[in-house]
Amino acid sequence: MNFNLPFRDKILRFLGPTRMIALSFVLVILVGSVLLWLPIAQNPGMRASYLNSLFVATSATCVTGLMPFAVIDQYNLIGQTVLIFLMQIGGLGLMSLLALFLTLMRRKLNFSEKKMLQDSLNKNDADNIPNFLKSIFRYTFIFEGIGMGLLALRFIPEYGLAQGLYNSVFLSISAFCNAGLDNLTRSSLMAYTSDPLINFTVCGLIITGGLGFAVWFDLRRILPEKKKLSWKRLWTRLSLHSRLVLVVTGILLGSGTLIVLLVEYGNPNTLGWMNFPQKIMAAFFQSTTLRTAGFSTIDFALLKDASLFIMLFYMIIGGSPGGTAGGIKTTTFSMLFVLIISEIRDSGNMTLFKRTLPSSTFHRAFAITLTYACIMVIAIFLLTLTEPQIGFLPLAFEAFSAIATVGLSAGVTPLLSALGKIVIIMLMYIGRVGPITIVLSLMRMKQNRKTNNLVYPHGDVLIG
Amino acid sequence: MNFNLPFRDKILRFLGPTRMIALSFVLVILVGSVLLWLPIAQNPGMRASYLNSLFVATSATCVTGLMPFAVIDQYNLIGQTVLIFLMQIGGLGLMSLLALFLTLMRRKLNFSEKKMLQDSLNKNDADNIPNFLKSIFRYTFIFEGIGMGLLALRFIPEYGLAQGLYNSVFLSISAFCNAGLDNLTRSSLMAYTSDPLINFTVCGLIITGGLGFAVWFDLRRILPEKKKLSWKRLWTRLSLHSRLVLVVTGILLGSGTLIVLLVEYGNPNTLGWMNFPQKIMAAFFQSTTLRTAGFSTIDFALLKDASLFIMLFYMIIGGSPGGTAGGIKTTTFSMLFVLIISEIRDSGNMTLFKRTLPSSTFHRAFAITLTYACIMVIAIFLLTLTEPQIGFLPLAFEAFSAIATVGLSAGVTPLLSALGKIVIIMLMYIGRVGPITIVLSLMRMKQNRKTNNLVYPHGDVLIG
Ligand SMILES: [K+]
Ligand SMILES: [K+]
Repeated sequence: MNFNLPFRDKILRFLGPTRMIALSFVLVILVGSVLLWLPIAQNPGMRASYLNSLFVATSATCVTGLMPFAVIDQYNLIGQTVLIFLMQIGGLGLMSLLALFLTLMRRKLNFSEKKMLQDSLNKNDADNIPNFLKSIFRYTFIFEGIGMGLLALRFIPEYGLAQGLYNSVFLSISAFCNAGLDNLTRSSLMAYTSDPLINFTVCGLIITGGLGFAVWFDLRRILPEKKKLSWKRLWTRLSLHSRLVLVVTGILLGSGTLIVLLVEYGNPNTLGWMNFPQKIMAAFFQSTTLRTAGFSTIDFALLKDASLFIMLFYMIIGGSPGGTAGGIKTTTFSMLFVLIISEIRDSGNMTLFKRTLPSSTFHRAFAITLTYACIMVIAIFLLTLTEPQIGFLPLAFEAFSAIATVGLSAGVTPLLSALGKIVIIMLMYIGRVGPITIVLSLMRMKQNRKTNNLVYPHGDVLIG
Repeated sequence: MNFNLPFRDKILRFLGPTRMIALSFVLVILVGSVLLWLPIAQNPGMRASYLNSLFVATSATCVTGLMPFAVIDQYNLIGQTVLIFLMQIGGLGLMSLLALFLTLMRRKLNFSEKKMLQDSLNKNDADNIPNFLKSIFRYTFIFEGIGMGLLALRFIPEYGLAQGLYNSVFLSISAFCNAGLDNLTRSSLMAYTSDPLINFTVCGLIITGGLGFAVWFDLRRILPEKKKLSWKRLWTRLSLHSRLVLVVTGILLGSGTLIVLLVEYGNPNTLGWMNFPQKIMAAFFQSTTLRTAGFSTIDFALLKDASLFIMLFYMIIGGSPGGTAGGIKTTTFSMLFVLIISEIRDSGNMTLFKRTLPSSTFHRAFAITLTYACIMVIAIFLLTLTEPQIGFLPLAFEAFSAIATVGLSAGVTPLLSALGKIVIIMLMYIGRVGPITIVLSLMRMKQNRKTNNLVYPHGDVLIG
């Protein structure tokens, strides 16, 4: 007889999936912060404060990548390995790791565990979760393995076999998980600005990780049909979700590249000194990294205000659901545009690719966007109070970078006060767990359910 | 026989109400810009460029109040009188003036004219528009008359009888129309920072103008019932719209006062030098003026970043529909919060004061908010490119101030380049006419109607 099962079920039921997700991230962050704080994780003579250790652990677990100091300066091999684990756990999501563990132990998942997994994976149906998870892990390790191999071609000659391989593993996991940390230099990937191998491998990992599991599986499903079908037919065989994600990802990457290229073309501190193909490659890399990855091959502190400002929006849109990227997500962002267009057309139905979308999807999208907006208003307001010495735009950039788990910085992170660091830690955590999850986990759901079932008579107000 | 009628009907039908509104504002602005450009409107030795004249005419007609120079320096009595007319026309809305004219001519309005009026007045029902308009005008002149009388108590001793009365008329109309212009000094109302008569008269006019006609009429309807009913019963007799407007206006005025007071309490450049009651009065005045009025009794260039930042949101929320204020409107803003709360509660119905609101109201509110957001992103991006010498936050403040027809400035307006002025002119115009009206007036509606009537099968995407 197993006495643990009913007790564990009771805990799960009490906590509920949303609280479980919120708490499990807290747990990993706290364990990580203590490990990183220990002297054995740090280079000789270096001692980070606990606040800085907490900051770094949050940054790695929430796959953000903002750092008050360089990884290479602060952490030895032990500390760096802790970071690799935190990034991988944060990127894949704690719940999926837990589920894999349970699955491997050949035990069936019960309903509350399944519900939790669904919530953490953004998967709509509860069927076949163990297989689904195994596939996610298989794909993750395949993608990260390919990335590692490509990066090793550059890093083994540069750092020697052992260190070169280790650096390849670190960067490949960091890129695929959209974490944005590196153990190479003090200035992200600026040493590799003109290196196509590093640029395209890292971009490939970022984009793949950012597309989300749902799109990978959908692409795998249709690709064997390529032999008999045209590309156009193949496209219509993809799910609505996959088509939307691919189109929006393409538009965002392309327009981001174009804007960086045009605005920074003559800026001698960024793209100005490069030849034209290098300019395009750097613009493309920066456009990709904005999608919540957070590496950089140019110095963001030297970008023009126009670039920093427009980048805020690319950062907050972020990647796609069910992947390793953060932000409000490409699909959420699309819903906003579908609404504007349908309102201008004065059409009651909101349609996308000739499909009518349920209004609940829209309401969810607006609620997410608005919640992010409220949090950003409060956070930036607090930061302007705690960091009066830092310019407004770099400070707003830092806050957007934190909540969208991007990790880019216009040089602000090391200058933050203790209070400012706490605000940024909160934003990184909220950004990774999701603001709605946090609000839900703080609420007593049952009380509210009751009042909701009342149906009130109709009323209306004037708008605009 | 009247040959003009069918021809005018044809024009109205061709233009449609939205285009008519958009074009009539353009017409008034162009006429105003030429009048202000004429040497006879300007002080001896002063010659404004046509671009600056256009800027001022747009600022007055769109009741914004941003100025590249001081009214008192540039314009003589003729120019100032042109400004009074532009503000009054802009504040009341051209369409209502036109309708009054037609009504006074004892001619019945036809359907397309009624539709146009409804759109410009935000009134939901088409009944009894002539009476409705007459009431609006009566109220406007009563409120402006009271304001003028109170202001004259201060201005006649200060400026003599004729000039004192003229200045009272100018300021009263400017305040009630939420225009924010004055013909007194080079620094708005900073000379009257500690003058309760000016402060409370101007605040009263701003708030009354910003509540909107619907609320005035509703209040007039219920106030005679005061004798028999308690305040609480009286409150429930108000329409849902009026209750929402009054509650949100109260919350915004109160919270704005509190934030300015707390953030600027010790700032020696703003509230620091005042005694406590003066601090409260100045904080309240600034909170009121943010609601798209645009006067100031402190120097906005010397506010802290935290204040300027949080003010962006008070400005863009603005006043209430059907009044003289701009912004997305208090009701639109409230819908955003109702949605967040209903989404967190996981409730299908969106309710307010125990009434279920139609989802079309929500969609309209989101579409308006999102359209403003898109326009602001583009405009601020352009301004950061055209004005690299101006700090980001003051520049963003200028753009928010323009689109919300506020007219406050952190000292940026006179520094703008010609291109920057054109962007601000566009924003002021878009803000007054309404972005949705402009988009609609640019579109060929019929083509789009067709495709809308198709009902597509259902589809869905993953969100967040
Ligand atoms: K990141
Ligand atoms: K104004």
